[in-house]
Amino acid sequence: MENKEIQIGLFGFGCVGQGLYDVLNMSQGLEARIVKFCVKDKNKKRSIDASNFTYDKEDILGRKDLDVVVELIDNANDAFEIVSRAMKNGVNVVTANKKMLAENFSELYKLQQENNVALIYEGSAGGSIPIIRNLEEYYDNELLSSLSGIVNGSTNYILSKMQFDNLTYEDALREAQENGFAEADPWLDVAGYDALYKLILLIVHAFGVILKPEDVLNVGIQNIRIHDIYFAREKQLRIKLLAYARKENDKIRAYVLPHFVSRESELFNVNYEYNAIEVEGAFSDKQMLAGKGAGSHPTGSAVLSDISALTYNYRYGYKKLKKNGANGTAEGANGIVEDDFPLKCYIRFSNPESLKELDILSIEEEYRSAKTNYVIANVSFKSLFNLKGNKDTELFVCVVED
Amino acid sequence: MENKEIQIGLFGFGCVGQGLYDVLNMSQGLEARIVKFCVKDKNKKRSIDASNFTYDKEDILGRKDLDVVVELIDNANDAFEIVSRAMKNGVNVVTANKKMLAENFSELYKLQQENNVALIYEGSAGGSIPIIRNLEEYYDNELLSSLSGIVNGSTNYILSKMQFDNLTYEDALREAQENGFAEADPWLDVAGYDALYKLILLIVHAFGVILKPEDVLNVGIQNIRIHDIYFAREKQLRIKLLAYARKENDKIRAYVLPHFVSRESELFNVNYEYNAIEVEGAFSDKQMLAGKGAGSHPTGSAVLSDISALTYNYRYGYKKLKKNGANGTAEGANGIVEDDFPLKCYIRFSNPESLKELDILSIEEEYRSAKTNYVIANVSFKSLFNLKGNKDTELFVCVVED
Repeated sequence: MENKEIQIGLFGFGCVGQGLYDVLNMSQGLEARIVKFCVKDKNKKRSIDASNFTYDKEDILGRKDLDVVVELIDNANDAFEIVSRAMKNGVNVVTANKKMLAENFSELYKLQQENNVALIYEGSAGGSIPIIRNLEEYYDNELLSSLSGIVNGSTNYILSKMQFDNLTYEDALREAQENGFAEADPWLDVAGYDALYKLILLIVHAFGVILKPEDVLNVGIQNIRIHDIYFAREKQLRIKLLAYARKENDKIRAYVLPHFVSRESELFNVNYEYNAIEVEGAFSDKQMLAGKGAGSHPTGSAVLSDISALTYNYRYGYKKLKKNGANGTAEGANGIVEDDFPLKCYIRFSNPESLKELDILSIEEEYRSAKTNYVIANVSFKSLFNLKGNKDTELFVCVVED
Repeated sequence: MENKEIQIGLFGFGCVGQGLYDVLNMSQGLEARIVKFCVKDKNKKRSIDASNFTYDKEDILGRKDLDVVVELIDNANDAFEIVSRAMKNGVNVVTANKKMLAENFSELYKLQQENNVALIYEGSAGGSIPIIRNLEEYYDNELLSSLSGIVNGSTNYILSKMQFDNLTYEDALREAQENGFAEADPWLDVAGYDALYKLILLIVHAFGVILKPEDVLNVGIQNIRIHDIYFAREKQLRIKLLAYARKENDKIRAYVLPHFVSRESELFNVNYEYNAIEVEGAFSDKQMLAGKGAGSHPTGSAVLSDISALTYNYRYGYKKLKKNGANGTAEGANGIVEDDFPLKCYIRFSNPESLKELDILSIEEEYRSAKTNYVIANVSFKSLFNLKGNKDTELFVCVVED
């Protein structure tokens, strides 16, 4: 599709859709036009004329003259249907829907091969940070050993507000919501699901392995209290929700968990809505990419870069995936993930009974007072799955780095 | 050249050449082999068998069966000859020679077009950091406004040693040399020439403008004294040698100068041999890429990524350059560079007479003592060219950010 104006069919005109529209209007280098906008809500006021919109997805999916379908809606199931349909029609797709991608990765990978179309999604992990493309292309021949990232802007904003302004979790969350950094229902963010979906995508491109969201641990920050922040501050540490993966002897450790991060880490100074991903390779050593992890224009600009990449027929090569013989199914990952090992954690609790939710191997420190109780202990990693998605637990767990 | 083993002719087997060799041997994804190594010194002991080497460049340049010439020698003039010859033969070239590239950019750009070959050079700016490719591809449609980077590992190592260990400049330099972070003749590094060459390349890919090294200001750290470090520390600042370019109203400000960097800057914590480049765009906002800026394996891995990119026929598109109508000549840049403006600087001196080397517009602070004298003043930018390459001046100049 070189040297002609790119015709885009756009699904969704929320925060990122509007961002893409703005960025596209300001862009100088790219000849591209959104031919049709498909949205759901007929009554919502929008910044551009109603004649541009359709409420019937066939008005985009039924057309043969579009170069790209850009999918930027919220609902992951609807998104999967739209994206699959477009790919089966032989149309290239750009999306930023991490939940849809992570939940259906094997199927989407297969659809790309079967229909010989591109599916690209830089906006889905790390907002404006070009991490997926760099993992895919630049670290292609690197023996990557680990990646570790702050990939969720909402939780990082909440943690920074608690850290710097001594706000309670509830007040920090409210402020994040008021400033557009957290959803009305914050569960997917605060419980680490958003970070989990992104981690799944990063692992595909870093290590060539497709994992299922239900098989990877995520524990969030929803139980954090100001005393956990005080504890961190006393030790000159900061609490960050990290998406983490490390490969050692062909086994992968992967999880989303709060971590104490020290002043020496590049991630220590990544605060508020900023995201950063640190990648460690055998030869390039530690590298970090940092930038705004969310927001209308940053994510819109990542989506635009994907559209632009289609002009030179870019698509992900998935060389690592092919090399691992994953064949587009999550089964290819069997036996690659390390399912249990001891992990040193800080565990704060009110009722000592709740510690029984975890399999604690040994306790290194124990602290009790009228205000807060915690242990620092080696925990069986497997038992942390008892906290995954568990709204009833009162435990706050945070990894202590050695 | 897909799906077959890539045949490489390598010039140079110093630090980076050895790094490439190691990285290539460990690499899993790439089928590539160095068919011939051309080196200069017949008597030097090398880690691999002498039968692999040739001392006659025709043994590489005269062959028709090579896929890539990789140029990793020191001498910029010899390098230019090798690279031009290879390109004229229709062979793709990978190089990390920033001096050669910056001094001959217009000619090299033309050769790429005329001979329809790729010339790629990720290892030339930022060591292992994939900055050029990201500027070229990812920020393609971004209205980039500025870039600011620590791009020279030697000077950053020296500054960090002074900062953290209170070493004098001379001792810090000696230590850098002993640890392989500075050359026996450190002039190109400490006077900011290495950073200048890299800045020229970054500006090509960020703003689509070819500047000549002689037209862009570089002032280094060779006159720094421990009192300058004390001054910075008192104000909670750190001194960093920055390569800087900002575009405003279609004019570019560009220079290499020491800067006081505050704790709020992402660059504050980039120390020792680490490099980092901060890029600011209209939509993606501030982004930073950081990593090891030099060294055998990090740079070797950047070179390998370039070789790997050739397997899918990657070449720089130079879209910004083409859009600016540069036509491959530095003349295209005429009138784009802002040649004079007031710049607020800290200027430390022994003899007040030396201040006359600069055109000082107004003095904001003045300090004199038995140990150190400085002014903080607005200086005519143009007059700072009096210090460029000037071994006689005793002035130490450092930009004060407002």
